[in-house]
Amino acid sequence: MFEKQIYVRRRSLLKQAVGSGILLFLGNDECGMNYEDNTYDFRQDSTFLYYFGLPYSGLAAVINIDEDDTVIFGDEISLDHIVWMGTQPTLREKSESVGVPKTLPAAQLAGYLSAAAKRGQPIRFLPTYRAEHVLKLQQWLSLPPSEQKPSPELIKAVVNMRIYKSEEEVAEIEKACNITADMHLAATKALRVGMKEYEIAALVAQTAQAAGGRLSFPIIATVNGQILHNHHHGNTVKEGDMLLVDAGAETEMGYAGDMSSTIPAGKKFTPRQKEIYDIQVASHVAAVNALRPGIRFEDIYDLSAKVICEGMKSLGVMKGDSDEAVRQGAHAMFFPCGLGHMMGLDVHDMENLGEKWVGYDGEDKSTQFGRKSLRLARRLEPGFVLTIEPGVYFIPELIDRWKSERKFADFICYDKLEEYRGFGGLRNEEDYLITETGARRLGKKIPLTTDEVEEVRR
Amino acid sequence: MFEKQIYVRRRSLLKQAVGSGILLFLGNDECGMNYEDNTYDFRQDSTFLYYFGLPYSGLAAVINIDEDDTVIFGDEISLDHIVWMGTQPTLREKSESVGVPKTLPAAQLAGYLSAAAKRGQPIRFLPTYRAEHVLKLQQWLSLPPSEQKPSPELIKAVVNMRIYKSEEEVAEIEKACNITADMHLAATKALRVGMKEYEIAALVAQTAQAAGGRLSFPIIATVNGQILHNHHHGNTVKEGDMLLVDAGAETEMGYAGDMSSTIPAGKKFTPRQKEIYDIQVASHVAAVNALRPGIRFEDIYDLSAKVICEGMKSLGVMKGDSDEAVRQGAHAMFFPCGLGHMMGLDVHDMENLGEKWVGYDGEDKSTQFGRKSLRLARRLEPGFVLTIEPGVYFIPELIDRWKSERKFADFICYDKLEEYRGFGGLRNEEDYLITETGARRLGKKIPLTTDEVEEVRR
Repeated sequence: MFEKQIYVRRRSLLKQAVGSGILLFLGNDECGMNYEDNTYDFRQDSTFLYYFGLPYSGLAAVINIDEDDTVIFGDEISLDHIVWMGTQPTLREKSESVGVPKTLPAAQLAGYLSAAAKRGQPIRFLPTYRAEHVLKLQQWLSLPPSEQKPSPELIKAVVNMRIYKSEEEVAEIEKACNITADMHLAATKALRVGMKEYEIAALVAQTAQAAGGRLSFPIIATVNGQILHNHHHGNTVKEGDMLLVDAGAETEMGYAGDMSSTIPAGKKFTPRQKEIYDIQVASHVAAVNALRPGIRFEDIYDLSAKVICEGMKSLGVMKGDSDEAVRQGAHAMFFPCGLGHMMGLDVHDMENLGEKWVGYDGEDKSTQFGRKSLRLARRLEPGFVLTIEPGVYFIPELIDRWKSERKFADFICYDKLEEYRGFGGLRNEEDYLITETGARRLGKKIPLTTDEVEEVRR
Repeated sequence: MFEKQIYVRRRSLLKQAVGSGILLFLGNDECGMNYEDNTYDFRQDSTFLYYFGLPYSGLAAVINIDEDDTVIFGDEISLDHIVWMGTQPTLREKSESVGVPKTLPAAQLAGYLSAAAKRGQPIRFLPTYRAEHVLKLQQWLSLPPSEQKPSPELIKAVVNMRIYKSEEEVAEIEKACNITADMHLAATKALRVGMKEYEIAALVAQTAQAAGGRLSFPIIATVNGQILHNHHHGNTVKEGDMLLVDAGAETEMGYAGDMSSTIPAGKKFTPRQKEIYDIQVASHVAAVNALRPGIRFEDIYDLSAKVICEGMKSLGVMKGDSDEAVRQGAHAMFFPCGLGHMMGLDVHDMENLGEKWVGYDGEDKSTQFGRKSLRLARRLEPGFVLTIEPGVYFIPELIDRWKSERKFADFICYDKLEEYRGFGGLRNEEDYLITETGARRLGKKIPLTTDEVEEVRR
């Protein structure tokens, strides 16, 4: 945890920003995998962590702005609990460590809220993302699931705080990024022809855990890089394959890192792999060089997409005007996803608070295929932390679909494209902090160019 | 998955056992860690796996016994899904692979059930253990959480099938046990003074994953073995410490292994550690030698507890008649937990179906401290798979509590006990199949005696 005053200050700023009413924060509970007591690794809700810091299950918190009352609701531990789980500080002690001297038993929360509702105080809460949250709101507020409406005022106020990373947060994120870099270096060194994808995934996870971290999201380690969120790890790595690894660590405090590497199964990339890899690196570098306060991230996306189109034209896979290709969305054949996303206490930071506020600052987003997958488009500001991860993918199902529709036939040379049909996909990914004057890469450098990767593979 | 006929036969036997009504099986959904799309590693419900085999989220199944209709409810995948997650068989193909030719869209389940309810058919379901289950039953059956009553007939019928492991199930469990043994061997070889507990936990997890498995439960790797379910891994292993590792693998099909080891930080145990360790091994071996069909597992627990009392008497920590000490519960000072549990598709097999049926065959269980933690007491039968894991623990909080109450002062020599106050705790654990004539250890042997452990440590 950070020191007490940081949480006190954050709550004070939030109270000023929202101005009135009751703010209700749902901590997460344990979730049983296959029965109640066989639980997944506990993860506290990120907004709860941001304002209350406590990484324990079974908690909720209320900030009653009108009455200047802040309470953490939860239950004290029993002797039975001590025998099975060891001694712990009391709930009171834990709460005091984050500057909240008042605690009440969990059973009193529903009464607290209904008394507030009777006095006419609005009860504001954030969007839910677990079934347990929905059940709790139903129980505590007597609201059926369909009537549980999160508070836009609270969402906007929280986004507007969490989006600017403070110095101590950047230090935590950098810690996560350094572990993340080690995870990628370990994979880049260890990969051998004949290995199973899950052997690399296991090593990457071990690297995070042996450094005292854990995974910030489920590992991608696949010879089928064209499948964007592939969590299958059962393939054997063959001669001539590339392994795409997308993985990150989370620190004990919950801050995330997120990087990607594409590693040749042998010591070197094939000439064709280099061809495509170089296009992707050019796109990556163009995006990184454009990072600065004031620029719209969607403009950087357009730039990185244009570099990919130019590269494809050099191979004879695309033709025509690259700006126009990007405007119409033809690049999405090869680059159907976003360029990057916010990162912080969540690897896709604040994703559950809604892209509209986090990534679009309230603006509407495009419905165009490819562009609609941009999680982030808004104007960049100092203190933002984000990923840069353009990729080049050859997705057979998408090729077949568009080819049969003759879609973007002015831009895509479908005959030439057939030569790349089985190529797969690749990307690299790094993490950046937007500074007052530009941007700074977070964490140790991992190999980016083919030369750098081959250097490690030797 | 097993071959189709196995699932067909299991469902047919279940229909005969329950006789009438609608059997509703809830598959599990994805669970978001810190936002909806950042999910934990998906784990299907074990009973769903047993009867329907499909390890995918978003499914439910109905066996309408009265109308001889079996349906899997779920939704087909879209092109968007293929781009992000890769190609998959259709739901229809998946269902046919487990012998269920009929599928319907998920949205039709509520209508199917309400039509059945209107016809007067009872709708039987199992106990819930995730908030998502409660929400689904509320939505599908219009039952508020407090009125969701699981079916005793269905529970008993399912327990009475899953409790007897078939040959193909034993083969899967043995696969899990072999990976589990490798996890313990890796930890036993790798432990060094100065390591963090989480470095060993990371290695143990990697060993499971690199073999294509995953963890069957959260790893225990602790220098504080007296804390029974300690999931903190932040301590540094010091000279003279012992590390207690309790960990198991789960195969791709969901079958579990579960073993424990206690490893000295150095190459050898200290004389005092040997003293206590030998008592625990004697208890372990006595329990294993008693395993056979027809014996009550609670009688084996009594036997293993008695061996611990005898050992404690030899050290001067206990006195009096050991049988009487066990009858009254004095042994629970050192052995406050059970002797073992059923194991299968769950590491504590069928725990969510209730100990009363799984471990007690419908009998009531003791409320005595220690004995009340027995998950398993019933008469053993061929086909049962269970763990053997007596332990010896010195729990300071428990010592203080009982000493202040002069509890069991006829049996416990509190003055002498003070010498062991900071000892910690230890256990070993193996997995056994009850056969027609006795029992068979499952999986490769891991070191059990101090000699065997020290042999590996050299």
